[in-house]
Amino acid sequence: VDKDYKNIKIIGFDADDTLWINETYFYEAKVSIMGLLSHYASPAKIDQELVRMELQNLSTYGYGIKGFILSMVEMAITVSKSRVSNKIIDKIIQIGKQMHHQPIELLENVERVLTLLSKKYKLILATKGDLLDQQRKLKKSGLRHYFQHIEILSDKKEENYKQLLEHLNLNPQHFLMIGNSLKSDVLPPTQINAQAIHIPFPITWNHEKVKEPKKSDKKYKTLTNLEATLELLI
Amino acid sequence: VDKDYKNIKIIGFDADDTLWINETYFYEAKVSIMGLLSHYASPAKIDQELVRMELQNLSTYGYGIKGFILSMVEMAITVSKSRVSNKIIDKIIQIGKQMHHQPIELLENVERVLTLLSKKYKLILATKGDLLDQQRKLKKSGLRHYFQHIEILSDKKEENYKQLLEHLNLNPQHFLMIGNSLKSDVLPPTQINAQAIHIPFPITWNHEKVKEPKKSDKKYKTLTNLEATLELLI
Repeated sequence: VDKDYKNIKIIGFDADDTLWINETYFYEAKVSIMGLLSHYASPAKIDQELVRMELQNLSTYGYGIKGFILSMVEMAITVSKSRVSNKIIDKIIQIGKQMHHQPIELLENVERVLTLLSKKYKLILATKGDLLDQQRKLKKSGLRHYFQHIEILSDKKEENYKQLLEHLNLNPQHFLMIGNSLKSDVLPPTQINAQAIHIPFPITWNHEKVKEPKKSDKKYKTLTNLEATLELLI
Repeated sequence: VDKDYKNIKIIGFDADDTLWINETYFYEAKVSIMGLLSHYASPAKIDQELVRMELQNLSTYGYGIKGFILSMVEMAITVSKSRVSNKIIDKIIQIGKQMHHQPIELLENVERVLTLLSKKYKLILATKGDLLDQQRKLKKSGLRHYFQHIEILSDKKEENYKQLLEHLNLNPQHFLMIGNSLKSDVLPPTQINAQAIHIPFPITWNHEKVKEPKKSDKKYKTLTNLEATLELLI
């Protein structure tokens, strides 16, 4: 075990884009909707308007598919200057319904990594988003039994991690978080003196984008895939 | 203390329409939307179509405002035979946003009842719905400190109550649930040998409507308001 991790007792995993593909489905939905609205605006204009709408609505809707689709409908009305057809609005809503029922596609080697780590550490899942949707994805993933605790959070800020560790009755120095989002999975845990490993996913949602800290201030490791954690942790 | 409740150690409270007003806001939103669509269909027709749409979408969207609004937009397209204007669709979406930011209106004597019961019992909150929205309402309510545990569930069936009691490490005979929904707060707990008290709210969402059991099979008490629990429990 790498010396940085010798105190670790509990490992927290993010779910979306850490254990299974998620952002890809949002990206594909966005591309489909850009196609539906191509008569009214360019993809760049649609993307810009959507980002604006999502950020504006985030504190109201929170994370998840339903808020995304409501923002999509609002954006369609705006970019079309209130001329988008009922047919297209209905298609956007149906794309949202399909997103809820996407199959779960695990990332590479997830089961092998969880099997090996669960022999040595207590594993928990800490994910944010829509309660029903996250529960449904976890069930479909077949990964439930690896985790001794599941926490579905409405957000993943320092405060949320503090509460989680209190609930687990755990000193931060015994906790390691692994995830794809610098903003949600990596920076907040390191700010409360827990450890974190960053495993970037090829697509990052706009709202999750933050600047990497300067090298000298960096308090976490970045790995290219989940399997690489084994070398450090086992 | 009434002899039925002498073993009770933990009391679970439902939140929406038990501690504060909720269904009224959905009802008012529905009435506004009926007004917006009066050109296309009668209130009765709209109501019928909405109930159909909500039930059809429930397993996809779950409970909460966002799913309700998405069903409303879909219903508007259907009842108008795809002729509803962008302006009306946008108004429906804005009604949904306002619903997220409604003030919290506590039901009568809630604080007094919680104060007295919390001196004698451990109180927990067990509510279903949207994670962010329920957390926001609880914060606004100012009631957070009465509860030693908060559980936001995606559904309230026997299975969910079993898991909750396991999590609390509690024998069902020591648990009493208090709520306004026969279907979600009262019947499931009694089916797993916990106790329940039913306090009906004047409006019940269609999906929550179930038949009362025959008098001889009835395993719970029905009270007209929260204050009446004090006589039985203190």
